[in-house]
Amino acid sequence: MKYSKLFGKTNKNTPADADSANAKLLTQAGFISQLMAGAYTYLPLGFRVFEKVKKIAREEMNAIGGQEILMPALQPREPWEATGRWSDPGQEVMFQFKGRGDKDMCLGFTHEEIVTPLVQQFVHSYKDLPVMVYQIQDKFRNEPRAKSGLLRGREFSMKDLYSFHLTEEDRVAYYEKTKVAYANVFKRCGLNAILTEASGGSFSAFSHEFQVSSESGEDTIYHCVKCEYAWNKEISKVKGGDICPNGCGTKIQELSAIEVGNIFPLGTRFTDANDFSVTGEDGKLVRVIMGSYGIGPSRLVGTIAEVLHDDKGIIWPKSVAPFQVHLISLGSKDTVVVEQINNAASLLHDELEAAGIEVLWDERVDVSAGAKFADADLIGIPLRLVVSEKTLKENSVEWKERNSDEVKLISINEIIEDVKLFVK
Amino acid sequence: MKYSKLFGKTNKNTPADADSANAKLLTQAGFISQLMAGAYTYLPLGFRVFEKVKKIAREEMNAIGGQEILMPALQPREPWEATGRWSDPGQEVMFQFKGRGDKDMCLGFTHEEIVTPLVQQFVHSYKDLPVMVYQIQDKFRNEPRAKSGLLRGREFSMKDLYSFHLTEEDRVAYYEKTKVAYANVFKRCGLNAILTEASGGSFSAFSHEFQVSSESGEDTIYHCVKCEYAWNKEISKVKGGDICPNGCGTKIQELSAIEVGNIFPLGTRFTDANDFSVTGEDGKLVRVIMGSYGIGPSRLVGTIAEVLHDDKGIIWPKSVAPFQVHLISLGSKDTVVVEQINNAASLLHDELEAAGIEVLWDERVDVSAGAKFADADLIGIPLRLVVSEKTLKENSVEWKERNSDEVKLISINEIIEDVKLFVK
Repeated sequence: MKYSKLFGKTNKNTPADADSANAKLLTQAGFISQLMAGAYTYLPLGFRVFEKVKKIAREEMNAIGGQEILMPALQPREPWEATGRWSDPGQEVMFQFKGRGDKDMCLGFTHEEIVTPLVQQFVHSYKDLPVMVYQIQDKFRNEPRAKSGLLRGREFSMKDLYSFHLTEEDRVAYYEKTKVAYANVFKRCGLNAILTEASGGSFSAFSHEFQVSSESGEDTIYHCVKCEYAWNKEISKVKGGDICPNGCGTKIQELSAIEVGNIFPLGTRFTDANDFSVTGEDGKLVRVIMGSYGIGPSRLVGTIAEVLHDDKGIIWPKSVAPFQVHLISLGSKDTVVVEQINNAASLLHDELEAAGIEVLWDERVDVSAGAKFADADLIGIPLRLVVSEKTLKENSVEWKERNSDEVKLISINEIIEDVKLFVK
Repeated sequence: MKYSKLFGKTNKNTPADADSANAKLLTQAGFISQLMAGAYTYLPLGFRVFEKVKKIAREEMNAIGGQEILMPALQPREPWEATGRWSDPGQEVMFQFKGRGDKDMCLGFTHEEIVTPLVQQFVHSYKDLPVMVYQIQDKFRNEPRAKSGLLRGREFSMKDLYSFHLTEEDRVAYYEKTKVAYANVFKRCGLNAILTEASGGSFSAFSHEFQVSSESGEDTIYHCVKCEYAWNKEISKVKGGDICPNGCGTKIQELSAIEVGNIFPLGTRFTDANDFSVTGEDGKLVRVIMGSYGIGPSRLVGTIAEVLHDDKGIIWPKSVAPFQVHLISLGSKDTVVVEQINNAASLLHDELEAAGIEVLWDERVDVSAGAKFADADLIGIPLRLVVSEKTLKENSVEWKERNSDEVKLISINEIIEDVKLFVK
């Protein structure tokens, strides 16, 4: 992909919520553009990252037996009345409005009300359980303070998985599986997410959150480094400086953190409301037990930019970078040399693409080397390759990784193999 | 994938809008489930088809230089006021409501109002043009009569591409490219879409639609079979029985048809409203010229089911079938034979999957052969393979294609290679 053809360039725009690093960096690097507070367009660079994050989430959900579906965002009032959430918290957090014939409708901020009767349609016997279904769908919240870029939106992407079980034992076993799958998602996205005990709200005694340490985080957690476990301040009986209650002897840290995922035991909160039981092995009715599990792919994109950057720009992990290689061809005073550089870079671009590597090629001729390097740092692709008069003389390419200051010269004959190894 | 584990089975449900074949067949075959009129959940089978249709659309859009982005569905009032469409047709067709602070918001039924100022942010010079961006995003319409399954929804998927040009000549050249790309999308989805001249509405003298002949279609078109061209009744100067005005001598047919795509010259309708000009080569300001191009992936799924079915069920084209092979293992009175059948089918299932082939394996033991065959016909996967006592004795597998009545026996040693050839 030639940079001059890419829609959405680096810029000096400052979004209204440039309080947060992710809003500022993702905007100025040309990944997103704000439509209004809490609603962003993904430009081609941002769209590529977003898709990679969603793909990782999909792979991990499929690996634990999740089946992908897609439920409507636009919903009628009735299922929300059945659970009592049309009024509370619905009226506070939902966009509720009227359609034709004065029909009450809303935009879902979660999908328990929709998925429970859906699964009930198809599940009648203990033999039909467990069922694990998930979707990646936009959620909508009438946020009082939509802010912090992709961290808190009015429209945001959610990967929500729902599980249905015959027994609490089976629900617990699956809950433990989701902990592992979630940890995998965050690790693959380059994040260190801390498993955190949190309130179960009105549903259960507790839940778990995955929290990423960040000054921009809205949550406060008390973290034991040794146990790799934490407690959300909302429910914590420990505080900063205390000794870990697990008996490991370590002092608890207080951290600000961004919640990137949560998993909830739902018990029979929603199956009771829908009178959803199955026939058990003994022929008697058994109430179905549920869990729900959420990751926000849009918030995840924001969190990565929020915590993985330096003062020059974003530092994307290889797994979700918009491109794998940022190729730069520099200019020269000699027009013959310019053509030679351009030809060499074009050849390299084509060879890399032929090897299945994603390349963004900054081939602009009217832009200085300094400006090109600054753009590459801001955009944050993991590997920068430079073709210039100097490198051509040495029949080589300049190699610089985004998260290192070292600059190497690599022979043109070896470059493709080296890049293949790097992106692996 | 084992059928017993698949979420969403064949059923006898009748959706409220079972007037149309697609609503009835897609519901009863377990592809979709109606939440309310005009809003459907995609179950795993339906989701797989939907994803394949979107992938085809993406590939063809990328092939003509389209860059994928994603714009919010939730939008503020202001850009719609700028073009005058908040009131007309907005108040009629949009969901409009208030957020916090009494802020007017809406759900987009199209995105010209959003994409034009977005592109304007990044495009300042003739050198920045042309720009072609597209998205696949849900649209929302406050439909008076949401009906006909996936054909007319309140929430529906749209692939909308927008192009921005320096000259009308360039816009026309790109318009011709989109005609070819659109024809490819429909052809790859197994549909015969007729290029149809239609009204340009308030935007231009004309537009083009792609229409698929169907009794369920809401449109009437006048079609010349020889020219492979048609006119929408709304603007047609010809009628059924007339001689084709192109001079080919053929009699015009009247057809009911489903509109599966449309392409619009937009002129400067939206760039005028946003005062969007660029600096031309001579330094003078030039008003940017636009086109827009839409395909509804959800409607496309519905159209395929609507036109490609028989009285037994859907007949998916290979390109978008939820699975490539429907493997059935039958029962036996002899429990040893049951185990042999199951082992052979399990091995075949694993070998097919290892060869990269998508297999749905109906391994249910408590279901009759007749019921399994009926389910296979209803679901409509292109190739049905049966392992039974009879086929095992002949060291073979029964092969039946969905769109043929012929049943063949294929040697177990040749089956993988034959399937590979079939799905190619």
